[in-house]
Amino acid sequence: MSLLGDMLGAIAERGRAILDLSAISQAASPVEQIVALCERLLSSRGEASALATGSEILARYAGFDEGERLAFFSALLGGFGPEVDALLPAARAFVAEPGPVNAEVLHQLSEPRRQKLFRLLNQSAPGTRRLIEMRADLLRLLREHPGLEPVDRDFRHLFRSWFNRGFLELRRIDWSAPAAVLERIIRYEAVHEIADWDDLRRRIDPPDRRLYAFFHPRLRDEPLIFVEIALTHSMVASIQAILDPNRKLSDVATANTAMFYSISDCQPGLRGVSFGNFLIKQVVEELRAELPQVTRFATLSPLPSFSRWLGGRLADLPMLSGLADLSAGEKWRDRSVAAAFEPDLTALAAFYLSRARDRSGRPADPVARFHLGNGARLERINWLANTGPQGIAASYGMMVNYVYRLDEIERNHERFASGQDVAVSAAVRRQANAGAKLLDLSAGNDRLVGGS
Amino acid sequence: MSLLGDMLGAIAERGRAILDLSAISQAASPVEQIVALCERLLSSRGEASALATGSEILARYAGFDEGERLAFFSALLGGFGPEVDALLPAARAFVAEPGPVNAEVLHQLSEPRRQKLFRLLNQSAPGTRRLIEMRADLLRLLREHPGLEPVDRDFRHLFRSWFNRGFLELRRIDWSAPAAVLERIIRYEAVHEIADWDDLRRRIDPPDRRLYAFFHPRLRDEPLIFVEIALTHSMVASIQAILDPNRKLSDVATANTAMFYSISDCQPGLRGVSFGNFLIKQVVEELRAELPQVTRFATLSPLPSFSRWLGGRLADLPMLSGLADLSAGEKWRDRSVAAAFEPDLTALAAFYLSRARDRSGRPADPVARFHLGNGARLERINWLANTGPQGIAASYGMMVNYVYRLDEIERNHERFASGQDVAVSAAVRRQANAGAKLLDLSAGNDRLVGGS
Amino acid sequence: MSLLGDMLGAIAERGRAILDLSAISQAASPVEQIVALCERLLSSRGEASALATGSEILARYAGFDEGERLAFFSALLGGFGPEVDALLPAARAFVAEPGPVNAEVLHQLSEPRRQKLFRLLNQSAPGTRRLIEMRADLLRLLREHPGLEPVDRDFRHLFRSWFNRGFLELRRIDWSAPAAVLERIIRYEAVHEIADWDDLRRRIDPPDRRLYAFFHPRLRDEPLIFVEIALTHSMVASIQAILDPNRKLSDVATANTAMFYSISDCQPGLRGVSFGNFLIKQVVEELRAELPQVTRFATLSPLPSFSRWLGGRLADLPMLSGLADLSAGEKWRDRSVAAAFEPDLTALAAFYLSRARDRSGRPADPVARFHLGNGARLERINWLANTGPQGIAASYGMMVNYVYRLDEIERNHERFASGQDVAVSAAVRRQANAGAKLLDLSAGNDRLVGGS
Amino acid sequence: MSLLGDMLGAIAERGRAILDLSAISQAASPVEQIVALCERLLSSRGEASALATGSEILARYAGFDEGERLAFFSALLGGFGPEVDALLPAARAFVAEPGPVNAEVLHQLSEPRRQKLFRLLNQSAPGTRRLIEMRADLLRLLREHPGLEPVDRDFRHLFRSWFNRGFLELRRIDWSAPAAVLERIIRYEAVHEIADWDDLRRRIDPPDRRLYAFFHPRLRDEPLIFVEIALTHSMVASIQAILDPNRKLSDVATANTAMFYSISDCQPGLRGVSFGNFLIKQVVEELRAELPQVTRFATLSPLPSFSRWLGGRLADLPMLSGLADLSAGEKWRDRSVAAAFEPDLTALAAFYLSRARDRSGRPADPVARFHLGNGARLERINWLANTGPQGIAASYGMMVNYVYRLDEIERNHERFASGQDVAVSAAVRRQANAGAKLLDLSAGNDRLVGGS
Repeated sequence: MSLLGDMLGAIAERGRAILDLSAISQAASPVEQIVALCERLLSSRGEASALATGSEILARYAGFDEGERLAFFSALLGGFGPEVDALLPAARAFVAEPGPVNAEVLHQLSEPRRQKLFRLLNQSAPGTRRLIEMRADLLRLLREHPGLEPVDRDFRHLFRSWFNRGFLELRRIDWSAPAAVLERIIRYEAVHEIADWDDLRRRIDPPDRRLYAFFHPRLRDEPLIFVEIALTHSMVASIQAILDPNRKLSDVATANTAMFYSISDCQPGLRGVSFGNFLIKQVVEELRAELPQVTRFATLSPLPSFSRWLGGRLADLPMLSGLADLSAGEKWRDRSVAAAFEPDLTALAAFYLSRARDRSGRPADPVARFHLGNGARLERINWLANTGPQGIAASYGMMVNYVYRLDEIERNHERFASGQDVAVSAAVRRQANAGAKLLDLSAGNDRLVGGS
Repeated sequence: MSLLGDMLGAIAERGRAILDLSAISQAASPVEQIVALCERLLSSRGEASALATGSEILARYAGFDEGERLAFFSALLGGFGPEVDALLPAARAFVAEPGPVNAEVLHQLSEPRRQKLFRLLNQSAPGTRRLIEMRADLLRLLREHPGLEPVDRDFRHLFRSWFNRGFLELRRIDWSAPAAVLERIIRYEAVHEIADWDDLRRRIDPPDRRLYAFFHPRLRDEPLIFVEIALTHSMVASIQAILDPNRKLSDVATANTAMFYSISDCQPGLRGVSFGNFLIKQVVEELRAELPQVTRFATLSPLPSFSRWLGGRLADLPMLSGLADLSAGEKWRDRSVAAAFEPDLTALAAFYLSRARDRSGRPADPVARFHLGNGARLERINWLANTGPQGIAASYGMMVNYVYRLDEIERNHERFASGQDVAVSAAVRRQANAGAKLLDLSAGNDRLVGGS
Repeated sequence: MSLLGDMLGAIAERGRAILDLSAISQAASPVEQIVALCERLLSSRGEASALATGSEILARYAGFDEGERLAFFSALLGGFGPEVDALLPAARAFVAEPGPVNAEVLHQLSEPRRQKLFRLLNQSAPGTRRLIEMRADLLRLLREHPGLEPVDRDFRHLFRSWFNRGFLELRRIDWSAPAAVLERIIRYEAVHEIADWDDLRRRIDPPDRRLYAFFHPRLRDEPLIFVEIALTHSMVASIQAILDPNRKLSDVATANTAMFYSISDCQPGLRGVSFGNFLIKQVVEELRAELPQVTRFATLSPLPSFSRWLGGRLADLPMLSGLADLSAGEKWRDRSVAAAFEPDLTALAAFYLSRARDRSGRPADPVARFHLGNGARLERINWLANTGPQGIAASYGMMVNYVYRLDEIERNHERFASGQDVAVSAAVRRQANAGAKLLDLSAGNDRLVGGS
Repeated sequence: MSLLGDMLGAIAERGRAILDLSAISQAASPVEQIVALCERLLSSRGEASALATGSEILARYAGFDEGERLAFFSALLGGFGPEVDALLPAARAFVAEPGPVNAEVLHQLSEPRRQKLFRLLNQSAPGTRRLIEMRADLLRLLREHPGLEPVDRDFRHLFRSWFNRGFLELRRIDWSAPAAVLERIIRYEAVHEIADWDDLRRRIDPPDRRLYAFFHPRLRDEPLIFVEIALTHSMVASIQAILDPNRKLSDVATANTAMFYSISDCQPGLRGVSFGNFLIKQVVEELRAELPQVTRFATLSPLPSFSRWLGGRLADLPMLSGLADLSAGEKWRDRSVAAAFEPDLTALAAFYLSRARDRSGRPADPVARFHLGNGARLERINWLANTGPQGIAASYGMMVNYVYRLDEIERNHERFASGQDVAVSAAVRRQANAGAKLLDLSAGNDRLVGGS
């Protein structure tokens, strides 16, 4: 259907013939040259030369090493911001006479030149893909170079507009999907690694398993985010049960529960352009339409930083003195050892998930933050639910069920957003109270407990 | 593939249940109510309630009469611009210390609230479609109410980002296309009306005819713009020859010319988000790839306002005294009469197309402006090329061939953009000189001749 | 996806170069030449030459007039039957020693050479399509030339194998279907003519209307048979109510009835390869899966030859003396006139449909034969249900509802097949008894009444 | 698109409810029961019950062990052949009066009942697939039970009609193909095993590699046969060069040769319904259309039974005394050893391929038989072209290039079919003469050399 990519290429090719690169002094450094090309792109008038210039910039950037990337972003920061001189009289006029008309003049004059530059680059193929990669590089560099933040702001502004959720497409991915897509699913799965194609097949081919992903029309085979689901007859308490290659199939006709057991972002360059909350809700509606008998929607989620959080407090918790060995010696395999730890660890986990806060006052656990903020309820804490090395290391093998109840999602979400208590089941509430006692905290000060 | 529309609907439906409309006072006017809903949308936190509020706004707007629309746009103008109070300190800070950092703060604070509003509305289905219709209404109202221009600026800003040419899809439309698309082609054809489905079939089904359109992924069956093409063995001089139902088919294997005989914008709400120039160039590349033997790309184009331009000058052109009767009595059918008029009229048309300017100094004829600005060359003026009532009325039956030569498009475009002379063939140049003489103009002052 | 057609063409093209047509004497008649080509095809060894020979035969046949077609079929009859000489020893052997082994030898040796010929022709593109057209010609000629029947038997044998219902594809046709398909729907509708594209759209675009068709994978855009359906809230009694352009839409969510109001065979060349019964049953299952609330499946069907049947009996039915004028003067528009005729005509129609038999002892009415044989029940006779000229002419404006009850289809079908009474409602049974009285028939001899 | 499968299932499901299995005596053996069901299917009248009976038969057969299958096929042989009693009078009539009319009666009456049975089974889903599997079972059993041949004849007759090449679809398979198809490609590759998904990707994803397959519309994801191709700049002499994971990509724009390096039949149940010759020719046309610069079409083919053929003659060939060690000790890695064997072995291979015959007088080598019979020319014999264990074992590592020259395919094919000499290059002819001398054969008697 789409001939776009090829044709853009052909037009750019034609433009390249007329693209006089001799003017881009060979003496200058690669970064100086790409900056000169960016200036030319911003001032170009013809379609063909603009496409060719854009392609040239994208191709040169792709060959950059980390140092050149940094230099390039620094140039974008310094030389492609708003045009200050042109803005000054408008700002004076607004200060003299504040009002919407003058404000809008300000808005237009203050747009960083980077935004126009990125819009133009997006027209050359494969512009969107390259810009996402470019921002992924930038985000990596930002950690050491926070001053580049304004450049990222322009990326984020445009990406939020282009990846407006109204433009996304939900697709079910099964064994008839193109290998080019499936290969990326294997690569991008971030929660429970997919070992190989057989493992992948076990997750998408059986009738009681589902995988849904968001796509953007411009990025045909590139999932943006995906979620994996098991259809079951009860709320599952361990990931081993879900991933067991020898498990028994569930009868889809009678399954009443959808377990969301993995959700993976695929594009680091789209961080902060959030799709996850929306994906879960759309998939819930999709499943309800197809399988009316499925009435319970729950997750099986990790507690990625519980061990870290608990680590600093272990000195004050003598009853957990043997905990460090739990993983090392695979002691959790010993049922009596495991049983001894269960009550205290689940109590502390309940406390951690429902009451511990980070410096901004949000739940300390990032996964809890996501699901609770999204309107889910913290339903159950599962002991020895992920006994793989990672699971043991991150949370002593515990996992959590969050439940999405259609009639309370919106209310929970509003309560969360307004800073009120998070939604938890009665059992978890009891466990959290026990956890507070272990930590010797009164209800009054427990919110002060810093997070990760 | 895409389950999006349905699912958005279902989520919105769920939200509606919780959408407490009682707070939107029933006493208030419909416009006051929709304004209250817009405020609520801007402050909403949950997905479902935002989608439901957005749907409610779109649905209510769809029921508005012209007066309510005007009142709504006026409210958008007055109440949803930039937040002036918040902006003032930032403007003062920038004036005190001008620099990119302060400028960017200005940029963010000065964004009209309308932009966020439109982005949120776009998430409800069918948001994009409704927003385009909304802007079409606005453009109509703008003629009488130019003060609404700032509202339009926000639409245009977002549409240019969303309809970035990198996101468009080129499709060939033939007799196997969905009826839902074809029906719109019939409706949108603006140059040479398509009488009925048989007429349409004659334009897309024969192997020597083509129709290409741009689509946006979100608007599945809605063409944005399309172009109709005849493959021929020479540069065709009359539209009758192209549209004749009894014409002989061309042998595509030997055809060397692609005649672009009609190009139609489909979405009034996307005016100013130009695709036309890009469409022609992409189609040229597409045809070159499929049919290497086609080497000439020419248009058969109207002169939509030549009669109007000439009308005011007729008093000074006694040799054209019989011109008024040409159409009335179908005198053009008389070969000797027709022959008598030809030299003078083509000379004047050549002058009009290549030298007449509007108040902004651009070519007076809008079609000439488009093609010449796009890099084409004005090749030939054809007498009695469109003898339908409209053709006679608009330009005494004349039409023009513009030619796209791949090796000069970019150069012509740059010359045009820098205000230099337009590209014309030697023959047209001679005719234009003759036209100048008829008008008794020296080469020096001919540019002063005002356009329509 | 399918490159087949093109490639077959290219291979055939190559073969044509080597196809020495000079050997096909130019002196011979066109029919003698095509017969020579058929012989060559049957003895050809190479792929390319076989494809080229097949294409040549198909192309030549396409240019034949009716006389040449007849001569060609006569040649097929005379010269391409079983090879009698080779068969004779085998037949003798079987008579001498009857048994399955010898019987199978007989079977192989007795295959008419036509079958191999048709199989080979099917390999050239567009073989299947051309063979169907060829048989349509043959069926037309058969009326005057019944001796050609053996040729038809070979077509039918192969078509029944190729169009095995396991190979057919059911598709819903709506307004997003390709125009190439829709155009054929307009052309093939045989019961209630589709006036134009607007009329078509009214039948497929509204949510309460459906059209389903069977397709064969080799004939992409060619429907084989299709059925039109209205979703309603009651069993509809008149076609005017269904086709009224100004009718109100039904709410699909609450509709409980599917009215099958038109079923059209598309391919005269596939007569006797029946799909109709299967189509109805598949569509019933399809609707049940999509719309569980739809529980009644009924037709609104014509009585195509009731007037003809009744005509010969009018002399004995003085109470119907004014009937002839009913149509002529549109007297049926007069309510009191119409009311006067209703009881007798419906009684006679009930008798005609449920008891009149043709010479083979089957129901005299072909539509009744189809639906009753298919397991439906004759539910209701509707007076003034089709007041168009055709409806009045065929059946004085009456139409019938047959009902498909899932729990009795199979039983009705078996009863019908074994020659027992047809399934009728109590009301129709009473009306049929009244009709018998009017005709002065005892229950004993009513089956003797000949059909059309 | 196709709702067929589901709907067939639903109709069958409904039929099952009414399928009175109690009549199928529980006392009888499973095979007696399935035979009773077959009789019922042949006499069934209703659609639903026929579909249900067919599904029941297919499901029961699927559960059979090898002994039950044999018993079932024996029952098909004994009880479902032609109806001998009904046939006898017709045979007598034909013997008395031989002619086409009586012959056709014979043909109809002598059709084995199995054919009708298989046609009916094909209507239940997934009938086609199950029948192919059934025949695969039968072919396996035939080796030990040649008397079942008549049953196979009926399968073959129907499959040749259903898989008429006019119904097949050619598809290019690349990395965007569904995993469900790709998985089968991995499984079915029979010549050069595909190790895993990475290996597969190397064969279909790079621009200089192609894979084409035939599909039948009823078997969506099931390839029937496929061919793998490398685009190169010369006729490649070793399979290692083609499959090397570290090879350099060829530039497709300048590649002039298409190497067909593997062709695999996928469906054992379709043996004898040949597609291979047709596939190669269609792919040649496809490549010519897409890549006009590719003008050489050659294979790199194995000699699967050369070692076996030569083995029996080694005693008479003292110069090859060391041959047995060649493989065992990987002595071929020693260049001087390898060089010593080359002239004699290639001479003998040339002789074997071009002159050795099997008992039916056809070329002894099955691959040579296929390509030479298909119109190719035996171009070159390549020493150490496949040094994998299988290659060494089968042919001392030799492989062959056959070349398809468009202008001689048909002529070669006809010559081959008429029993004349096969097409070989001058070099191979010389080598074959040398081989004949080694074998001490005069040109006169070399055809007598028996094959494998």
